[in-house]
Amino acid sequence: MKTVDAAATGTRDKLIEAAITRLRRSGLSGAGINEIVRESGAPKGSVYHFFPKGKEQIVREGLERYSERVVAFIDSALSTRRKRGEKVKALFNAFAERIELGEFRHSCPVGTVCLDLDSELEGLRLVVAASFDQYLKAIEAHFPFQDRRRAKSFAGLLLTAIEGAYIRGRADRSSKPFREAGAWLAELVEQAET
Amino acid sequence: MKTVDAAATGTRDKLIEAAITRLRRSGLSGAGINEIVRESGAPKGSVYHFFPKGKEQIVREGLERYSERVVAFIDSALSTRRKRGEKVKALFNAFAERIELGEFRHSCPVGTVCLDLDSELEGLRLVVAASFDQYLKAIEAHFPFQDRRRAKSFAGLLLTAIEGAYIRGRADRSSKPFREAGAWLAELVEQAET
Repeated sequence: MKTVDAAATGTRDKLIEAAITRLRRSGLSGAGINEIVRESGAPKGSVYHFFPKGKEQIVREGLERYSERVVAFIDSALSTRRKRGEKVKALFNAFAERIELGEFRHSCPVGTVCLDLDSELEGLRLVVAASFDQYLKAIEAHFPFQDRRRAKSFAGLLLTAIEGAYIRGRADRSSKPFREAGAWLAELVEQAET
Repeated sequence: MKTVDAAATGTRDKLIEAAITRLRRSGLSGAGINEIVRESGAPKGSVYHFFPKGKEQIVREGLERYSERVVAFIDSALSTRRKRGEKVKALFNAFAERIELGEFRHSCPVGTVCLDLDSELEGLRLVVAASFDQYLKAIEAHFPFQDRRRAKSFAGLLLTAIEGAYIRGRADRSSKPFREAGAWLAELVEQAET
């Protein structure tokens, strides 16, 4: 039994990882069941076995799993420095390296899915919004402004810039939008009242 | 003849406008030929008559047409104010109103398409990059920094924030990411050396 269970978990896992890969590359438009199955190497029947609700379920689980990793990634990048400006630069440089590693073809699947949503996919919008909330909390924890509202809105600005830099970085095949934003926003936070 | 030509232009136009609408809503994932035809009300055969290269051609023309409008929109928003900080706020408030008008379901089709690209769509990536270049030039013209490189990178930061705010705005169904970014970036440019 144990072996069978392990194999099943393996297949389930592979499908989720394949979904994440496809979503990072081309959002919902590239993450049809056929593409996910092809990417995973799993047999097609296994999708509906493990994800009886089909595409929406696998996308949801992919986003949830990916978000946990990004929260850890953000936390780790921001922990490397003590000064606010340096924290900002470290965060954006970490994302710059991330997009370079993906050869400018992969970005944040929460962003790619968000821009593919139509009104029939309200359930996925809530998953997207919840993922961003987690990112925001992870960022905010590293910038202890006196004014709580200002802390939240500064974290919001950083997240806005990260998601936008992914778009521009993919358009230009360049990590410059991240490094550029990091430099400016470091300048901002060094001068800002906290 | 004139009437026939006018009708033909009308159908061609309707198809491009329908493509723009679909792309703004859900990127390439929602802009299949069938969806575009349905949105336009034009007969299906007309797509290949007017766009012999199919979806890629209609998407390209849609993005090109839309970009011209955004350039005019940016220019107009930035022309309403004289001081740098106020210009920044006016720009982000104008986009905030834009996403409110679209009930948080429409965003920039250049961004939505960009995050749906895979390596087979290199031609469209170049269209996306060219559109962003036009946006950047329109922004840059309104911020005459002494240092040209700094002017370009500041315009880059604003564009990054606009594209990112569209993502977060759609996730949260809110224009707050635009207004928040506008306030912070106005603060930045007021303090920055130019």
